[in-house]
Formats: sequence, structure tokens, C-alpha cells
Amino acid sequence: MVAMLSGLLLAGAHGQQAVLNVMPLPANVQARDGALTVDANFSVAVTGYSEARLERAVTRFRRELARQTGLVWKREALGVAKTETAKAASGTSATSGATLTIHTGHASAAIQELGEDESYTLEVTPVGATLTAETPLGAMHGLQTFLQLVAVTPDGFAAPAVTIQDKPRFPWRGLMIDSGRHFMPLEILKRNIDGMEAVKMNVFHWHLSENQGFRIESKKFPRLHEMGSDGFYYTQEEVRELIEYARDRGIRVVPEFDVPGHSTAWLVGYPELGSGPGPYEIERKWGIFDPAFDPTNEKTYKFLNEFVGEMAKLFPDHFFHVGGDEVNGKEWDANAKIQAFIKANGLKNDAGLQAYFNKKLQAIIAKHGKSMVGWDEVLTPDLPKDIVIQSWRGQDSLAAAAKQGFRGILSSGYYLDLGWSAARHYAVDPTSGAAAPLAPEENARILGGEACMWSEYVNSENVDSRIWPRNAAIAERLWSPQSVTDVASMYARMDAESARLEWLGLTHRTYYRQMLQRIAGRSAAPQEEAALRVLADVVEPVKDYAREQLAATEPTSGTSLNRVVDAVALESDTARRFNELVDKYVAASCKDDDAGNELRAQLIRWRDNDPAIESLAQKSFLVKEVVPVSQDLATLGKIGVFAMDYLILGSQPPAAWRNDQSAVLTDVSKPNAQLLLMPLAGVQKLVNATGGATACGAK
Amino acid sequence: MVAMLSGLLLAGAHGQQAVLNVMPLPANVQARDGALTVDANFSVAVTGYSEARLERAVTRFRRELARQTGLVWKREALGVAKTETAKAASGTSATSGATLTIHTGHASAAIQELGEDESYTLEVTPVGATLTAETPLGAMHGLQTFLQLVAVTPDGFAAPAVTIQDKPRFPWRGLMIDSGRHFMPLEILKRNIDGMEAVKMNVFHWHLSENQGFRIESKKFPRLHEMGSDGFYYTQEEVRELIEYARDRGIRVVPEFDVPGHSTAWLVGYPELGSGPGPYEIERKWGIFDPAFDPTNEKTYKFLNEFVGEMAKLFPDHFFHVGGDEVNGKEWDANAKIQAFIKANGLKNDAGLQAYFNKKLQAIIAKHGKSMVGWDEVLTPDLPKDIVIQSWRGQDSLAAAAKQGFRGILSSGYYLDLGWSAARHYAVDPTSGAAAPLAPEENARILGGEACMWSEYVNSENVDSRIWPRNAAIAERLWSPQSVTDVASMYARMDAESARLEWLGLTHRTYYRQMLQRIAGRSAAPQEEAALRVLADVVEPVKDYAREQLAATEPTSGTSLNRVVDAVALESDTARRFNELVDKYVAASCKDDDAGNELRAQLIRWRDNDPAIESLAQKSFLVKEVVPVSQDLATLGKIGVFAMDYLILGSQPPAAWRNDQSAVLTDVSKPNAQLLLMPLAGVQKLVNATGGATACGAK
Repeated sequence: MVAMLSGLLLAGAHGQQAVLNVMPLPANVQARDGALTVDANFSVAVTGYSEARLERAVTRFRRELARQTGLVWKREALGVAKTETAKAASGTSATSGATLTIHTGHASAAIQELGEDESYTLEVTPVGATLTAETPLGAMHGLQTFLQLVAVTPDGFAAPAVTIQDKPRFPWRGLMIDSGRHFMPLEILKRNIDGMEAVKMNVFHWHLSENQGFRIESKKFPRLHEMGSDGFYYTQEEVRELIEYARDRGIRVVPEFDVPGHSTAWLVGYPELGSGPGPYEIERKWGIFDPAFDPTNEKTYKFLNEFVGEMAKLFPDHFFHVGGDEVNGKEWDANAKIQAFIKANGLKNDAGLQAYFNKKLQAIIAKHGKSMVGWDEVLTPDLPKDIVIQSWRGQDSLAAAAKQGFRGILSSGYYLDLGWSAARHYAVDPTSGAAAPLAPEENARILGGEACMWSEYVNSENVDSRIWPRNAAIAERLWSPQSVTDVASMYARMDAESARLEWLGLTHRTYYRQMLQRIAGRSAAPQEEAALRVLADVVEPVKDYAREQLAATEPTSGTSLNRVVDAVALESDTARRFNELVDKYVAASCKDDDAGNELRAQLIRWRDNDPAIESLAQKSFLVKEVVPVSQDLATLGKIGVFAMDYLILGSQPPAAWRNDQSAVLTDVSKPNAQLLLMPLAGVQKLVNATGGATACGAK
Repeated sequence: MVAMLSGLLLAGAHGQQAVLNVMPLPANVQARDGALTVDANFSVAVTGYSEARLERAVTRFRRELARQTGLVWKREALGVAKTETAKAASGTSATSGATLTIHTGHASAAIQELGEDESYTLEVTPVGATLTAETPLGAMHGLQTFLQLVAVTPDGFAAPAVTIQDKPRFPWRGLMIDSGRHFMPLEILKRNIDGMEAVKMNVFHWHLSENQGFRIESKKFPRLHEMGSDGFYYTQEEVRELIEYARDRGIRVVPEFDVPGHSTAWLVGYPELGSGPGPYEIERKWGIFDPAFDPTNEKTYKFLNEFVGEMAKLFPDHFFHVGGDEVNGKEWDANAKIQAFIKANGLKNDAGLQAYFNKKLQAIIAKHGKSMVGWDEVLTPDLPKDIVIQSWRGQDSLAAAAKQGFRGILSSGYYLDLGWSAARHYAVDPTSGAAAPLAPEENARILGGEACMWSEYVNSENVDSRIWPRNAAIAERLWSPQSVTDVASMYARMDAESARLEWLGLTHRTYYRQMLQRIAGRSAAPQEEAALRVLADVVEPVKDYAREQLAATEPTSGTSLNRVVDAVALESDTARRFNELVDKYVAASCKDDDAGNELRAQLIRWRDNDPAIESLAQKSFLVKEVVPVSQDLATLGKIGVFAMDYLILGSQPPAAWRNDQSAVLTDVSKPNAQLLLMPLAGVQKLVNATGGATACGAK
């Protein structure tokens, strides 16, 4: 049993402490002895309160468990699965003998509310498992935990015996997807909602309008979607389908309709509501643009009142997001009537005008029974305290809002499109930084956070890879106790979860090989394809907003996203592991020869990779642009191999050598083709380690 | 332009002659100078006859071209795609300036018929392309050819200038999928129909009933699907949807309802039609079983008449498959009433009784306006000549049928489940062997062939990989001129097509890594996962029907298909390339040191791969069973490296060494875990080459 347990309990092969392969890590875990076998006889009984949603969750659970394991359930194979489901539906199935018994206390709210009980207790013993929860929300979370526990062992599939008492740290754990800049077909949203369920997120924030597209059917104002979407919008029927899909997975859907800025696409069909002379056209570029609603025009509020009324009926959630970010004020400044209004009403400036707009908008939202959510620009002290501030410009605004009595959620630090590492996102805590010294009642106003997937450089093909697996690290930050901060453990569990997410249909891994194949072309030789993979495996797109700055031609919504920069992961696993191994090697005074040889072999591969890339570049324009990157990788490999030779032999290069190499590495650090070579840090450390003052150099 | 052309025209990196990257290879190809750029401005005009199906095909074509290239069509991005489609729909769009102009002569038949005109001419020039076809069927084939022509070049995407005149060799080019033994969800069938369209197959043969399942809703006899399917069946609405889907792609749908044998699942709900005492239960095992309809019972014909009537209305195709294979006669032999009937009617034996049954059944099929198709067991001279014989037991029956005046299609040699190589399938020609000496009018009765995917060891997860890419080789055999037989060219083009098929959603490549990940488990170290991949890449499942014979416990429909044997490809690319390289190396008298070093490096990898597998086997029962295979691979590697050392150094081992190694290799040739080590042949050749009598040994 020890062997089995070690297989189940070790999160990975990176030598960190034994820990359950669960992500997010539960609040309380107690390992027990033994394990519960999961085989074709696996059965589930539902006791206590039940409902159709919970039964569907159990059906989904069984399907996912079958996918993960490849098992064929015996009774299903024998044609009695339906009977069992029917039994479960009646809530009367006998628990005796069921492998997993679920007991739920009572229903959750008819419309999922912020702060509902999501807790659960999962007890796995060698003879059976029990999942207990107050509501179906907790039960569904517990089922996901169980799925993560199941692993292959020397004797079959099994879940380790364990007692888990779990509940979320924050009640608002969201993912925002921008359907405005690039339209995201419904199936893509659905599989991402599956992914959210897997990591226990509970708010899908749907960014539905942008300068580049108005993405939802309005029956009251059909010119919104007809003229503002290029034909790419969600019908109201699809929206209802998605809301139901999300509710089935314990996930609220908060729609965002961004006003008064980011609103070009609205104004294409309704130019009379804009602050400029019009006409307006759907924006094709990225950035901050001038078009804005006219806050001085009563028609604007009449329109918004009717529109919000329509959408408030469609979206059952209590929260309604109005955007409010990045109004550049240019149309307002250029409009004499608006400037006169500002003066006449003592509003001081554009910010005052936006505050005026927000106040009137908030009244409309409230009238339709909702609480308003806005980006942190909407924060002004005189708004009612039931609004929620979504902080994106920094943690200060979150703390400021809490101090003023507003609730808030953090997105600053959780922008998935900026290409940060999972570790960097993971280190961002909603109640740290400016929020750390808050009083308890202020602290309680921090509801959680949201990962944001803005879609300038993201389309149907690569969006999953820009969200996953890094989003799992953010999900853990928002669910698990604040004390859960071990980065090595996080990565090991995230790797495991990333593999599991594929069974849900997420394409964050599969897209990669396909895109590289397209880039290499069909006449690529196998060794050329392999070389492209070696290169692509160690580069990342430039970070933050550098991609705009480095673009040769201004990118638009018509720009093809088929380049190497669009294909590679936002975080390179290979480079991360290399850099980790360098740290380990140097920390061990460069005496670990196994690690040393592994590093050297890796560096040789990089050093010798370029000829195949050069040859491939003769055939493919998509490879041509990464030739300088490939040459830099060769340089990196060459310098690294030299450094390793010094370190392995225990000899020292002259100090000038280190300086020369460091200068070359500084050159290599400059992006090419919007790509960064991620093993650079590790190679620099190896070069540094050759110095006589270091433990390695003195060897 | 030469560089661009060479990129487009070379089928691969294997050094064979320059050839278009098109599969199946067209009847006539003439290369021209230059190439047609495919960029965001790419436009399509439809002239001449048009219809909604053709417009949908053009829309699909544009989508697939966008997927293949990652391009964003300019006008679509600008929101005018719909206008263009509307124009195309009216058939009036101006052709001037369109990148691709399609001209279609007239409609095809309302219900697709055998032998309709499927020809097309595709002319690609540097300034535009023209696709001309008599019917939409030909136009759709031409669109697929165009998609295959487009490739990445140093200057962007392009199609080489070329003139293609193309038409199929055979009018019946089919793929059969067995939905009986393992139910195949509709989406899986759809993507396989997409694959069929890509390689110009035109008949989907849908095996809908088996001992293990009756898979279609019958409104007349609901106990068929209710009691015979475990709940896994297609509704009639789904069937209509699939037929429409197939018609949109130029594919006929021929249903098969297998009688009088293979019929257990029918008899579960209607035991009174069986020849045994009943009751019947859905069969869980694989093989040939006793249950059979009672041909002496008039109720049988009344039932079949009504059932065929219902299905004949549902399936518009003129052909109706009645199975007729593998009646073991045991129920008939054990039934005194049936034996008395045989005697009373002078039917001689069970075969005579089946012929009697077939004759009555054929009359029923004909009455409902259809032509009967049956497996070759139904062949008896006194049946009407409009029936079609599907030859599965050998080519002789096809020739015999043709001589007797029957039409026939070949499936012997095209059984995808037997695990043959693409080359072996490719070598099977419907008019070779026994059919070669036929007279022209007999020869004309050979309509083509069908690949067959029987599903004992195939489920939703791995079915695509069992069909593709090998099915493309069969598709080429049935479409291209008989003279097209270059195996190296076939493999190079099949590799390219295999990559392209992924853009259609086929999972024949992506499933592999996921299944291996499941087998390795989440606690596998990266190097252990890599080792499993090295091993899995060079093994294939045992061939033909050996899997049953080697099973430790009898497999059933409840057996999990999650083992290494279920994950690995039916044809190992890695082993094939290794064996090809050995041939090349030996043919060059072992003087090609580059090839020699590549072989040696590969062999070293195999020799040293086992420790990681042994370690992984400590964690996963799914790996444990392949440890002997891994040890054999190590042996293979060790012997191969020794042989290479002799060959590279030009020294000779003692003859005893060769004998000893050959004995060991004979041992290695025995399957373990139902797997074969495919590089064995190459290693044996290297060992042989060390002999003094060979060019290598004498070096």
C-alpha cells in the first residue's frame, strides 16, 4: 500500500514534499491509510436532497471519470445505467455498496448568489467514499476534487484515502473572456466553463461589447448586433443556453456592456447617442478610441434604460457590469455642447462628467433590480455602496474602494493576455499590498478576483492556450487558504491538472503541434519539424503591451494569428524546468553531475538546432522571421556549453570571458519576431557561476 | 519562383520524385510555371449552375482554407462575407478578379446515384484559378484538390500553377463503420465523413445492427432499439441529419441491417422471429454467434417487409445492405421444424436455406425500390442481377460474381481493423488477382471497394486513429489510375494529408498523447513519459485476428480500451522510417555514414530506454504489462548497436555471432501484451548485413 500511496500522493517528479494532486488545494486535508479502488464496478448513490442539476453533475462526473481512466462502467455496459440514474433521480437509491455516496443538505438559491455555501467534506476510505455538502454547489466542487484524486497505481486506478474539509477563501472567483475583439464561438466558451468548474471558479464574466464588436442580439435595438458585429454575435437563445450551462456547473454569468467608452460598435447603428458627429464604423484596430456615449443627452439614458431592461431580464445574475474604463474624453472635449453642460452643471471636467453619467447609470441598473459592477474608473465616493469595483489598474484602487465602503474584486495582476508566468499571477493576492493593512470589515469587502482574457491576440484557435493552464494558478489563489504559496507544488499540480483539462475538450495543448505544423509546412522534413519544436518550446511572446510596440505593421482584427508568436505557450515549460535545474545545480555548488550532464545535453541541443531552422526558413515565410531567434538560441547554447565545460571540469575562465559572454547575452535578451528566449536567465546564471567568488567557481 | 515551386511540388523529404501533394493523385496533372498566391484577399466566385449545397461547400472550403493557413479573409473581417455569399447564391457574382472561379454545368441527381459524373478540371495560374465541373460533385472534389495544393512558401501561402483533369477510376469508393459493436456518436461519424470528403470517397456504409447492438430507432418496431441497444442508438432525426450531412459532401449513405445472422440484438425484443427457443440477450462477447432469424417462419418476412419499408423511406440511397455473413447454422440445426422445412422444400442444407431466405428478402428489398447489397455469402446464381456482392473473404468471390453477371465491391484487403500497413492495403487492387483476367464487360461490374472499420477494439476515443491516415491509401487506390503505385510517394502524401485531416477535427493524432498520459499517470516524470513514448512509437498491435487469440481474459464490450495496445498506432511511422533507412543504408553497401550514425543513435535510444519504463511500471499497472516489450526493445537496440559498430568500422563478427543474434531476434518476434516490435525487421537486416558474403560485410 505504501507504493500505491506514494504514487497517489506525490504531486510530481520535482522532489517537493508529498502533497495531494488537487488544484486548488483544499482548506483542510488529512491523509489516511490505503486507497479506494476505482474500477468498472464504480457506483454513485445520491442521498438527502437532490435535483436534476445534481443528477446531471453526477452523470457528467461518471463520464469524466470514464474518460480519465478509460474504464467502461459495468452496469452501463450491461444497460442498467438508466435505471440507476432514475433511482438517483428519486433520491432513494440504497447507499449500501455504492463506491461514492453523496449527501446534500438542501437546495441552493434558485438564482446563484454571491456568498452561497460552497463547502463540502470528502471522506475517502479503502471501502468507500462519502461526499457531504450543504448545497449542490458544494457537492459539485467535491466531485471535481474526487476526479483529481483518482490516479493510476500499480494495481489499477484508485483514490487515496483522505479526509478533506474544504471551502473557498473568496466568494467571487471569476474568469473574464473578451468576446468583443475576437468573437468566441459558444462551444469555446462552454469548454472554458468546463475548465472553470474543474478548478472551482464560480463567475463567468462575459465581455460582450467593444469598439470592435457588439456581440449579443438585442430585440429592442437590433441595429446593435446587426450593424455592430460583422454578423458574429450570440443570439438570445444561445445566451440562455450558456447561462444554463454555467448554472449547471455552479457558475454565475455576469454580462458586461462597456459604456460610455469602448462603445464604437454600439454607435455604428445608433450614432445619435455618440458624442461625436459620426457616422461610426466598427473599429478594426486595437487601442483606446475616441467614440463615447453622450452623457448630456437624455436619449442616452432612455436608450440605456430600455437596453439594460432587456438584458437584465436575459441575465438572471444580480450583478451587471457596465465597464466604464478608458474614456479618453476626446469626443467630449471636441463637443461644445458637452463642454457647456459640464460648466453649467459644475462637473469640473470629463471625469466629473463620467461620474455624473455613472450615477444616472447606476440608478438605471438599480431600477432593474441589479447591482452595478464597473472597472475601477467608476470609483467615486458618492455612488451607492452596493456597487462593486473591479480593480485592474493596481491594487490601490481595491483598497481605496474597501476603505470607502465599496466591495471590490481584483483583476490587476490577473490579466492572462500579458503573458506573465503562473508563478507571477500566483503571487498576487487580493488582500496583500495596499489591501494588507485593512481593517477586518474593510477586508471583508474584498470579494475575490477575476482572471481576464482580453482578445487582441487571441482567437478560436489559441484562446484555450492563453487561458490554461495558468488560470488554474489564479483559481487556486482565490480558493485556497492564503498560506498556500508553494510555487513548486503549484507547478507540479498545475501540470497534472493541465493534462486532466484535456479530457474536457480544452485544446490548450493540442493546438500547438498543429500550429507548428502549419508554420513548418507540409514539405518539412521530420528533423526540421523537430527543430522548430525545439525552438518554439523555449520562447515566449513579449510581455505586457510590448507586442503592439514591436509590431512592424499595426495589428488589426484582420491580422492573421498564425505566426510563431501566436503558437508558442505564454509560459515555456521547457525553459522553466531548465532554469529550475540551473538553480538546483548552482545551489548544489555545481557538484551534481547528473544535473550538469542534463543541462549540458540540453544546451548542446540548442547550440546545434539552427541549421535545420535555416533550411526550413527557405521553405516557409513563417519560419523565416524566427531565424534571428534561432541564431540567438544557438548563441545561448554555445555560451552555456562553454560555461558547463568550465563548471563540470572545475576550471575557471578568465573574468574577461564572463564579461564578454554577459555582453552577448544582453544582446540576446532583445526580442526578435516579438519573442523572448526564456532560458536566458539560466544561462546567465551558469556564466556567473563560473566566477571564482562563487561556490561553483571555487570548486 | 523555382524555390517556391520546389516547396510546393516536393511531396516530402524522402527523396522520391517531385510530385503534387495531392491524395488521391489525380488522373492527369500538368505542372505549369509559377504559383498562385493565397492571402487575405482570396476570393471565390461561383458561375454557371449553382445550388445551396454548392454554396455551403464554398463556405466550408473558405473555412477550411482559413484553418489550414490561419488567414483572416479580408472581406469577412470587414463584414461583407454575407453579401458575397448572397451574391454567390444568386449565381451572378462577377468573376473578374476572383482568385478562384468555379463553373458548374448542371445539377447532379436529386438522390446521388452510382456512377454520376464526378469529374472536374482545375487550372491554377499565377493570376487565378478556374475549377470546372459538370456537376456539384465534381466541383466539390476539385475544391478538396485545391485545398491540398495550398502550401506555405518562402513568400506566403500559395498553390502551384498546374492543370489537373481528374475523375475517379471506380464509382463506388466507400468506408464502412461498425456502429454495432461499439456505438459511435454522431459527431464522430460526421468528422469521418469530413475525412472521406477530403480524400474523395463517396459511400458511407453504416453498419447499424449487430449481435451487440441494434443502433437505430424503429418507429414500427420500437423494441428493436429499446431492448437491443442499451440506450445507445441513433434517432431517425439524427439519421436524417447524417444523410444530409453526407449528401452535402457528395457522399451516399448505404445502411446495413445484417440478417439472418449477426442478429442477436434484434431478437432480444422479438424472440418469436428467432430460430432458437429464446429468450435472447444482447451479446457482450465478440465472435460468431448462434442466433439467427427463422427463414421458415412467414412472420419473419412480414416483419422484414415492414421494417425494410420503414428504413427504405428513411434512407434515400438506391442500395440497401442486408449483411448475410457468418451464419453458423447452429440454431437451424437444432430446430426440428426448420430441418423438416429444409427437407420438405428440397433445400439440401443450411446454405440452401439461406439462399431461400435471400431470395425472399431480395424480393422485399426490390418491392421497396432498392437494390440489395450483401456480403459474399449471399452470392447464389439464381438471384436477380441487380444485387451487389461485397467481397470480404477474398478476391475470388468478386471475380466469380462478375463472371456470373453480378456487380461487386471489394473489401477483402481493406479491413482497417486488421492492422495492416497502408502499403499492404495500397497493394490490393479490385481488378487484380482473380479479377485480372476478366473480360471487359465482367470487369465493368467491379464497382470499386470499401474500407471496413469493425469495432471490437475501437471506441470513440481511438476510432479515428484506426481509420486514418491509412484509409487515405485505400481512397487513392479506388480513385487514382491503376498505374499509381509508388509506395514512397503514397506515404509522403499520406503524411501530409494526415496533418491536413486534423484541421477537420479528426483526432487520429491527438488522442495518442492523451492516452499515453493516462497510461503513464500524473506522477510520471517527464523522462518517464518520454520513454513511454519512445516505446509506444515503435510497437503495433498484433495483426489480423491475433488479439482474440492472445487475450488473457476473453474481451467483451465491457473491456476497457485503455491499454498500450489500444493507444499505439496500427502502423508505426517511426519503425517504418527506421526500416526504410536500414534498406537505404544496406543498399548503399553501408557506406552512407550519415545514415549509419542516425541508425546507431536511434538504436542507442532503444537500448537505453528500459530503465525509465521499469521505473514507471512501479507506478502504473498499464505500464507494467509492457515491461517485457520494453526489455525486448532494449535487446533489439543492443543487438542493433553491435551490428552498427561492425558495419561502421567495416569489421566482421564471427558467423556464430550472427546466428546467436538471429536466435534472440526470433524470441523478440513473439508478441507481448499483444504488441509487436516493428523495428525488428530492420535490425535483422543489419545483423545479416554483417555477413562476409554481403556488400557491407565485405567492406
